[in-house]
Amino acid sequence: MSSTNAGGSAFSVALVGFGTVGSSVARILCNGAHDRLRLTHICNRGIARKKVDWIPADVTWTDDINAVLRSDADIVVELIGGLDPATNWIRRALEAGKSVVTANKQVIAQGGAELEALAGRQGLQLGFEAAVAGGIPIIHGLRQGLAGDRLFRILAILNGTCNYILTRMEADGVAFDFALREAQELGYAEADPSADVDGMDAQAKLAILSAIGLRRPIAPDSIPLRTITTVDAIDFVYARRLGCTIRQVSRAQSAADGRVRAAVQPMLVSRSSALARVNGSGNIVVVEGELGGETAFSGYGAGGGPTAVAVVSDLESVAAAGGGEAGKLLGGPPARVAQDFDSAHYLRFVVNDRPGIVAALCDVFARHELNVDSVLQDPGGRKEQLAFVMTLDPCDAGLVNAALRDAAALDFHARPPLWMPVLP
Amino acid sequence: MSSTNAGGSAFSVALVGFGTVGSSVARILCNGAHDRLRLTHICNRGIARKKVDWIPADVTWTDDINAVLRSDADIVVELIGGLDPATNWIRRALEAGKSVVTANKQVIAQGGAELEALAGRQGLQLGFEAAVAGGIPIIHGLRQGLAGDRLFRILAILNGTCNYILTRMEADGVAFDFALREAQELGYAEADPSADVDGMDAQAKLAILSAIGLRRPIAPDSIPLRTITTVDAIDFVYARRLGCTIRQVSRAQSAADGRVRAAVQPMLVSRSSALARVNGSGNIVVVEGELGGETAFSGYGAGGGPTAVAVVSDLESVAAAGGGEAGKLLGGPPARVAQDFDSAHYLRFVVNDRPGIVAALCDVFARHELNVDSVLQDPGGRKEQLAFVMTLDPCDAGLVNAALRDAAALDFHARPPLWMPVLP
Repeated sequence: MSSTNAGGSAFSVALVGFGTVGSSVARILCNGAHDRLRLTHICNRGIARKKVDWIPADVTWTDDINAVLRSDADIVVELIGGLDPATNWIRRALEAGKSVVTANKQVIAQGGAELEALAGRQGLQLGFEAAVAGGIPIIHGLRQGLAGDRLFRILAILNGTCNYILTRMEADGVAFDFALREAQELGYAEADPSADVDGMDAQAKLAILSAIGLRRPIAPDSIPLRTITTVDAIDFVYARRLGCTIRQVSRAQSAADGRVRAAVQPMLVSRSSALARVNGSGNIVVVEGELGGETAFSGYGAGGGPTAVAVVSDLESVAAAGGGEAGKLLGGPPARVAQDFDSAHYLRFVVNDRPGIVAALCDVFARHELNVDSVLQDPGGRKEQLAFVMTLDPCDAGLVNAALRDAAALDFHARPPLWMPVLP
Repeated sequence: MSSTNAGGSAFSVALVGFGTVGSSVARILCNGAHDRLRLTHICNRGIARKKVDWIPADVTWTDDINAVLRSDADIVVELIGGLDPATNWIRRALEAGKSVVTANKQVIAQGGAELEALAGRQGLQLGFEAAVAGGIPIIHGLRQGLAGDRLFRILAILNGTCNYILTRMEADGVAFDFALREAQELGYAEADPSADVDGMDAQAKLAILSAIGLRRPIAPDSIPLRTITTVDAIDFVYARRLGCTIRQVSRAQSAADGRVRAAVQPMLVSRSSALARVNGSGNIVVVEGELGGETAFSGYGAGGGPTAVAVVSDLESVAAAGGGEAGKLLGGPPARVAQDFDSAHYLRFVVNDRPGIVAALCDVFARHELNVDSVLQDPGGRKEQLAFVMTLDPCDAGLVNAALRDAAALDFHARPPLWMPVLP
């Protein structure tokens, strides 16, 4: 196979899903800059109301996936999202001899290994640059650009919605609910924001990065999650006193025993760190290799334009690959996931104040052999709903968990304690 | 061609140049993690004193390039640096049917188009990830990862030696000569530092980035250069008063008329910008695309380990490419280069003080219709060698140049004026 398909003409592309990203992809393919790629099909439910006049007349519009699968399209671009029916459609496209480019993180995180193996057997390509960190070319960067290194750590901000909310809270001291509502009004957050704020979105992306970057596939739902919904405006005040701010951090790290330490959770990060400087809906991925040290990739993690760039870059890679092999990084037995990062810990309590509370908490931590590093309590606080913070010296998260269970059983809490690790 | 070479075995690799990078590449190839690549030859002058015991016994050591060219090596890695004989050896390797991976920025900036075309005619690959920004996978990032976008601006720190010197001056207020000597003692700067501090090193790298990223090849020596050797400790004091620090900035920008605005020079950059936060010998490349917005890549721009990672990543790409096509981005008629960036300007004067100096300078700028934005002079300065700063409102660099010629002719200067643009 040469740089064009069997017929010698450009690669024909079928778009499945014609929403924000799909129409951005179509615009790029129709602007004349990609002469190896030709848009031939657009498939969407209720296609009649989707039709736009700037698409060339010879493009076939259909609402029937079978018409796409039976067509002579060389590459199918899957942009419908969700596991079902996307997984099945991708499988059928590969079986029909079509390479596939997808932006679907759930499909790749859950079923990528099987689909990649199928693509390999068929001599086809499976591209998913757009599934992680939108316009940031992290999949190409890890798969090809850093192929010569052995990476052992990934530290990332992978969810633009969470980052928008947390940076709004940081900048203006607003409450979580206020920032979330604003993000929803601006279209940065869904009506049901749970996949973003509770971490499932970042969880799927981190599972893909672990496979590609660390070469240790992990089951996405084995990655421990903690929501950002419990982070409060007061936490940014105390974080700042500690030289920090708060981000939803996704991290994965190879352990010597073949496991992967991984977690997606709100964390305190130093205000001078690269992660603290990612604002609004930005994303960043910092990887660390045995030879190359730290390399960082940052940019826009979402939005029609950046995501469409990732899709078209994958299309160009498929066109350039010719007979080159499909990737084979997603496969292999999944590694076990551990959460035992060693770090300092931030604990915020909201209590109905009375004498002896700090002493009681210190007593619990002492019993668990945890060392309190600092107690932060701004003066003049009210007696009800008094918020104060304790920080613990670096220790295993499991120990903190056990101590917090005991601490939470004490009777002075007005709200459950909030626990965030501090990024070392 | 499958994922291995014609014989079905791993790709055999000949290393030409066995210095810091070469021996790091050999270590990676011998550590067992790259089973598609097999080190078969090491070529260096005076090979007897280069031999080390950790190289497998079946590797051929030679000081004769012809032995490499006649061998059955599939890929030649050129790590000798400099234009001559490297350009000729790369050409001969391609003619002999071998793909080439090189870290040689000068060869690629000057002769890359011809070599890339030769590789294309031969059905071979030419990899040069290591030629720009060391371990940062910027060539893969631009060529594949962002292939779907149309990039129009590149802003970069491409020389780790300059960045080391400038961040040392910034952190500790030391003089340029002191920081340079320290960099030389630490091995970050050459005995003759001119290629680094005067900008020729970054110039070659920027020419390559313009071709790959902006798709506008430019002749490297058409990029205007200004040295960092005239930057003084006092400039960091005044820069900080302006909310800035100083970096050697390489930038290239597509102009509507087909030209490329480009320059390599010391500039004032905002202390909150991504460039200001690159410390020590780090590198960064920030690109801006019509659709994807700003994407940044940062990491280690030099050193044996990071550069070797880039070389081995290229080797893996050659092995994976099979029958895929060579790049063809370096070729085409070179674009003309303009320097007419619009920006504010920082002018530092060192004078033998007397009344009327500021008035005389303001008069010159008024005649050239340039607007003075601020005059900064710390109180209590001595009369001889008094340093003060004027800043100009945004305007074309050519106008500043003309005004400075007139200003420099005035008789009160103790040293020539220093002019740096302020990065918008």
